Amino acid sequence: MGPAHRKTGLEYRMLSYQQARDWLLERAKPLNTHQELPLMQALGRVLAQPVAAGVDVPPHDNSAMDGYALRCADLAPAMAVTQRVPAGSVPAPLEPGTAARIFTGAPIPPGADAVIMQEQADLDGEGRVTFSAEPSPGQNIRRRGEDIAAGQRILEAGRKLSAADLGLAASIGLARLPVLPRLRVAAFFTGDELVEPGQPLAEGQIYNSNRYWLLPALQQLGCEVIDLGHVGDALEPTRQLLRDAAMVADVVITCGGVSVGEEDHVKAAVEAEGELTLWKVAIKPGKPLAYGKVGSADFIGLPGNPVSGYVTLQTLIKPFLQKRMGLEVPPPEAQRLPAAFAWDKPDTRRSEFLRVRKLAGQLQLYPQQGSGVLMSCAWADGLVWLQPGQQVKPGDELAYLELT
Amino acid sequence: MGPAHRKTGLEYRMLSYQQARDWLLERAKPLNTHQELPLMQALGRVLAQPVAAGVDVPPHDNSAMDGYALRCADLAPAMAVTQRVPAGSVPAPLEPGTAARIFTGAPIPPGADAVIMQEQADLDGEGRVTFSAEPSPGQNIRRRGEDIAAGQRILEAGRKLSAADLGLAASIGLARLPVLPRLRVAAFFTGDELVEPGQPLAEGQIYNSNRYWLLPALQQLGCEVIDLGHVGDALEPTRQLLRDAAMVADVVITCGGVSVGEEDHVKAAVEAEGELTLWKVAIKPGKPLAYGKVGSADFIGLPGNPVSGYVTLQTLIKPFLQKRMGLEVPPPEAQRLPAAFAWDKPDTRRSEFLRVRKLAGQLQLYPQQGSGVLMSCAWADGLVWLQPGQQVKPGDELAYLELT
Repeated sequence: MGPAHRKTGLEYRMLSYQQARDWLLERAKPLNTHQELPLMQALGRVLAQPVAAGVDVPPHDNSAMDGYALRCADLAPAMAVTQRVPAGSVPAPLEPGTAARIFTGAPIPPGADAVIMQEQADLDGEGRVTFSAEPSPGQNIRRRGEDIAAGQRILEAGRKLSAADLGLAASIGLARLPVLPRLRVAAFFTGDELVEPGQPLAEGQIYNSNRYWLLPALQQLGCEVIDLGHVGDALEPTRQLLRDAAMVADVVITCGGVSVGEEDHVKAAVEAEGELTLWKVAIKPGKPLAYGKVGSADFIGLPGNPVSGYVTLQTLIKPFLQKRMGLEVPPPEAQRLPAAFAWDKPDTRRSEFLRVRKLAGQLQLYPQQGSGVLMSCAWADGLVWLQPGQQVKPGDELAYLELT
Repeated sequence: MGPAHRKTGLEYRMLSYQQARDWLLERAKPLNTHQELPLMQALGRVLAQPVAAGVDVPPHDNSAMDGYALRCADLAPAMAVTQRVPAGSVPAPLEPGTAARIFTGAPIPPGADAVIMQEQADLDGEGRVTFSAEPSPGQNIRRRGEDIAAGQRILEAGRKLSAADLGLAASIGLARLPVLPRLRVAAFFTGDELVEPGQPLAEGQIYNSNRYWLLPALQQLGCEVIDLGHVGDALEPTRQLLRDAAMVADVVITCGGVSVGEEDHVKAAVEAEGELTLWKVAIKPGKPLAYGKVGSADFIGLPGNPVSGYVTLQTLIKPFLQKRMGLEVPPPEAQRLPAAFAWDKPDTRRSEFLRVRKLAGQLQLYPQQGSGVLMSCAWADGLVWLQPGQQVKPGDELAYLELT
């Protein structure tokens, strides 16, 4: 039996939630290379450079309606229809005194200055059209460059590309966009007691659940996830894995082994291979957190309790990773919503993140907030962010952070 | 030149937004087969059956702290520490009158009934421990089954599986989950004027932008997307493509060709191969919409204008597809947020969906709402849902639907 309270050279810094968030964000260096990707592969990727339009949209004056194009000054009863202009065709100049049948999106024939919608037109058996409304110049015509003028900046760098963004890029003829590479995040899991689900559980063993929420959560954030599996409680294999991870990844994440006095070789391995800072962050669930560097990779040590790890990822590590990915990271934006519950015994020193669900505009509390199991996180659609010492009465407006 | 106002046998039904939404949802039949997937492949998939726990969590009484386990009745100064129980080990019964060094998550030795945290313990040089606090029975012990009792239902059918859900399943030892297959959605695009981005644009041509927002949007919804490319304006190839699409897909979607009097072969092809209902839905942007059946596949014809198509997908087709995927579809839930803009000339007959952005708790309007290009949709983070005739003054609370 070793000494019970063996001290390492490591000290735990105490930080508030905001301090820890800011401290991490300061250290998050955005990726600075980029690649060109075809639009169809660019969904969810981070735009590396601003995009300006090289063309006018629409590229030519065109009809906003199905109807008839004419020159207003020529308006007369029973005008001859001398051409037909479907979308995609090239119209001839309009013969003076006549109208052109035209469809939505089709180019306006030179010489025409208005479109009358077909609902206000009557065609006789001899191909002549009479209108029930008087047009004014420019009516139902979309002007060249009206939506986007050539040279206009349409997408800013640092955006996560949406479906609409890709459609917008396509509409100005861009087939590829410059995007940042995916952030490579390697994760491994430590602990002799961990067993993979599907296997039988011996006395004293528990299932490795951290692997099964952490990797999908990283994937959902848009990271390239490198699953390095499981390592036993031994220093040398842990150091080796850490070196391997730092070679292939931008960020290395582990779960567990960062509490005071905890039985673990991860802290020692990170110290031996690089540098390590340990924190007590004043959040609940959460609290222990490790940040370090191994080679050029960041190291993040999440608490081993799944609920603590999950809440720490959502509240602290997600913004870090987002900034690292090249995204804009705004301050946490909370909705104000009324509580449908009471919370009498707040933690006086830590910010609490309660797992809640929005129901009919009110926040419902998951009853077992103290649990070590992910039921509350699976059930919740958001977190209530309480300040240290904040009590809650039903009806109080609380800061609600959506879990996405 | 053909007759200008050629009538097909098709009639346009007029429907309000709510009527169209309900009508579509009524026809959305959820998928009814399922498959078992390993957890790591199940993110975002729809759970096919409820999941109950087969085991207790935690599986045994265990320590909530790093500290010392003892029997409260035996408490004495300088107690001998007779065993050491790390997580994952199997403790021996506690020797009467002694304490056991214990770590978070480790099983409680038989005979012990409390854990004192190490911060309240002092170990002398001879391996004896003295406590500065008095324990009460049960203190710092997590009870077997406290978080989840064997038999308890933990996940309901019809859920889109989250990262936390997968971690929860892993924690009770499940390696696989029953999920519904992905909804197969085939899309094709029609129109002789369409050119793929990256190609030069001839007079009268436009870029096919619908393909580049529609397919990623379907992918983001979790559909298996089948891209059938582009077909020219000709009936036979369109009928052939439609038959092919209906063979491989659950839902077939096209863009364009569903307006009154529009030059298109899609309507005729769907009628020839199956059945078709055309609507004017009282929404703006939007309005024309087609629903039909080809074989066992649903057919959806979106308006060809990209903004109309995009808004129609978000407001009407997304709920349809979600129900078809087996998800629970709640009524549209809008936040109430104050406008930072005025809207003086509402459409008196149609619900308008304005593209807006939430900024410092207020809704900002994209200035060009009439545009045919996706700038407003790329810029916006949500839609304001106005009732027909609804005017807006700055400060008015509006119904805001987040675009996700």
